[in-house]
Amino acid sequence: MYCVFFDTANSALSENWAEALRLYGGGAAVNKKTYLDYAATTYLRHEVLKEMLPYMGEVYGNPSSMHTFGMQTRYALEQARAQIAGLLSAQPEEICLTSGGTEADNMAIRGVAARYPQGRIITTQIEHPAVLHTCQALQKLGHDVVYLPVDVNGIVDLDALKDALSRDTALVSIMAANNEIGTIEPIAEAARIVKTYSRAYMHVDAVQAAGALETRLYKLPQVDMISFSAHKFYGPQGIGMLYMRRGTRIDPLHTGGSQESGRRAGTSNVAGAVGMAKALELAIAEQCYESRRQLALRERLVSRVLSEIEGSRLNGHPDMRLPNNANFSFDYIEGESLLMRLNMLGFAVSTGSACSSASLEPSHVLLAIGLSHETAHGSCRITLGKSTHLQDIDDVADALISVVADLRSFSPLAQRRNYV
Amino acid sequence: MYCVFFDTANSALSENWAEALRLYGGGAAVNKKTYLDYAATTYLRHEVLKEMLPYMGEVYGNPSSMHTFGMQTRYALEQARAQIAGLLSAQPEEICLTSGGTEADNMAIRGVAARYPQGRIITTQIEHPAVLHTCQALQKLGHDVVYLPVDVNGIVDLDALKDALSRDTALVSIMAANNEIGTIEPIAEAARIVKTYSRAYMHVDAVQAAGALETRLYKLPQVDMISFSAHKFYGPQGIGMLYMRRGTRIDPLHTGGSQESGRRAGTSNVAGAVGMAKALELAIAEQCYESRRQLALRERLVSRVLSEIEGSRLNGHPDMRLPNNANFSFDYIEGESLLMRLNMLGFAVSTGSACSSASLEPSHVLLAIGLSHETAHGSCRITLGKSTHLQDIDDVADALISVVADLRSFSPLAQRRNYV
Repeated sequence: MYCVFFDTANSALSENWAEALRLYGGGAAVNKKTYLDYAATTYLRHEVLKEMLPYMGEVYGNPSSMHTFGMQTRYALEQARAQIAGLLSAQPEEICLTSGGTEADNMAIRGVAARYPQGRIITTQIEHPAVLHTCQALQKLGHDVVYLPVDVNGIVDLDALKDALSRDTALVSIMAANNEIGTIEPIAEAARIVKTYSRAYMHVDAVQAAGALETRLYKLPQVDMISFSAHKFYGPQGIGMLYMRRGTRIDPLHTGGSQESGRRAGTSNVAGAVGMAKALELAIAEQCYESRRQLALRERLVSRVLSEIEGSRLNGHPDMRLPNNANFSFDYIEGESLLMRLNMLGFAVSTGSACSSASLEPSHVLLAIGLSHETAHGSCRITLGKSTHLQDIDDVADALISVVADLRSFSPLAQRRNYV
Repeated sequence: MYCVFFDTANSALSENWAEALRLYGGGAAVNKKTYLDYAATTYLRHEVLKEMLPYMGEVYGNPSSMHTFGMQTRYALEQARAQIAGLLSAQPEEICLTSGGTEADNMAIRGVAARYPQGRIITTQIEHPAVLHTCQALQKLGHDVVYLPVDVNGIVDLDALKDALSRDTALVSIMAANNEIGTIEPIAEAARIVKTYSRAYMHVDAVQAAGALETRLYKLPQVDMISFSAHKFYGPQGIGMLYMRRGTRIDPLHTGGSQESGRRAGTSNVAGAVGMAKALELAIAEQCYESRRQLALRERLVSRVLSEIEGSRLNGHPDMRLPNNANFSFDYIEGESLLMRLNMLGFAVSTGSACSSASLEPSHVLLAIGLSHETAHGSCRITLGKSTHLQDIDDVADALISVVADLRSFSPLAQRRNYV
């Protein structure tokens, strides 16, 4: 897949890109770019943009206004909400639009904590920062928070969940699938345990899973809240939602106008909502085909890497994982160096989640599944998407093999262990 | 200005509009629509959309990612931030992007309240719900909140501010200009008083004022935080910002990733940021011309209405008001009926703010400036914009004259007072 750097219709922009490339070391020599970081964000699909465009110009008006302009946009907004609800087997009033997955997670967790300040919050050690840092912030304020351990594959310990539950547990928040290692959590079973042993709300961060896992997930009657983010399934940035089962009572995060039935104040993002609905529709329609296709490509990548690179391992569950996710560790390799070298060869991969990429700490997820600090520093996440094809997989496997060998040639430790 | 209902390139959309029109009583007879509710929202300018489009397809990548794709979008994001900062005479790190004005207000107020739970919060009685309801919610949680009164024109009482300030005041939040009656508040003077008599942070909700008032507002060295929303100045919905003067220390509203220097977690909305920067650039470039043009049109509207409709009054300050704002009250007229009748004639106006439009309560702003419940129920806000021309003003004045006369002909009270 070729990345378009130069837009001839807009010379100012072209200059910006030229400067960006010069500054950030792209340059003319690298003209093929292979994006393999779909877990960080996806591109906006053309079909989705096409649905959004009328609401970015011709059709305008505040959806809260009482006149025809407002009614037009309110109609579009409510159509989008109804479409999303239908796709998730939910009711329209159960869909609360937010500015993204992080806001949805904060809304669910802080919303419960504000309403039940004495209630325990239970989550896992491998949640996305949007959940984990929010729980840690609440813990600092005096809330009782329990972090469940996971096994070597990243599967949450359900016995520990059962033990942690009590009459005063207010919330259990477990992700549908991990954003770094792709492990799919046993949400249905966890929710059953939660509802059997407590009266707590069950929240699921499905930001990474949406569009990849089956929609039956969203039919789970024992889950009260689910977070989504449109830019993870080829929708626009800046829009997400929190599914809130009817009867879920939490305090709002944003107060002000009466938008979203008073649950989330702020002028509605009509184009964003329309885009998210279309993106979800397409993602669900193509889910079965795309999941199988990406799974086959991922399996090829995993088998080539594990067989052709000595001292490599796949992090996360071998089978219970997102079909597009591969997360490798390589002995005696520093993840950042690997990423930079692959980037110079035109491959966009990541070391962990994009949200923690500025951090120098090793991944909390890899530490939680038992990796040592050194190994956790040497991880490489490759996530596939709609535009990933067989050639890309073979190319990145070849690149990994040569880069790992090259980096190890500089490492005295790797040489001593005969890795070179 | 004609509103485009039918998009021949997209028949599914056309059907939706046709249905919307049928449902909401538009219909074929009404084919000219005059939008006069620019305070509720503006349309997205074509020049702004053009800047956004590359980031809604071709150029993608999570700005937090370390590879070239991420660097490209990060470069665009930081370019937009630098542009906004330059336009406001601020530093780039002082611009914190949010999902809109309501989030910016919540972030400022809740952020200070969380950090200084014992500190007093001072605001005015006529703030936008995003500020007012947030202060009320904090008051319910035990925070000390003082609501300053305003005079008959809606100007905040600065003596009351001086009296309310104390050593333990944490925040003063006063809007730059009122969203309903358009009154421009003496922010510079208020900020001077705040900094003279206390160590409190000064927050200004400039959502309604941005793009209409001079940018010197943003140079005020005594203001610590200012809220903005792009869709009020011909930018996209779903993006806004909080200017935070260097050294301002508040707790974040959204926790998670380290975006926005840890002040606001969540994947950045690159297209939105690029759009907001362009919209602000254009708004500031055209501010002088547009303000004068709209002021002249507004003056014509006010003079026609006040001279040709008996029992009419202009709410808000006669001079110290946003150039595009006219807010009228008519004796013996119910605002909702007026709005509906004008809407049937093709004019989009409002009774109060769009954010409170679902409410049946009379406007808190009109009550605060001393109007009776009955008069406050009968208000009509007409706000002008870039596409408003002389003919629109004469048309809406004619329509107002005939609708008011017609509505009064049904009112026994109006007849008794010889208004008909």
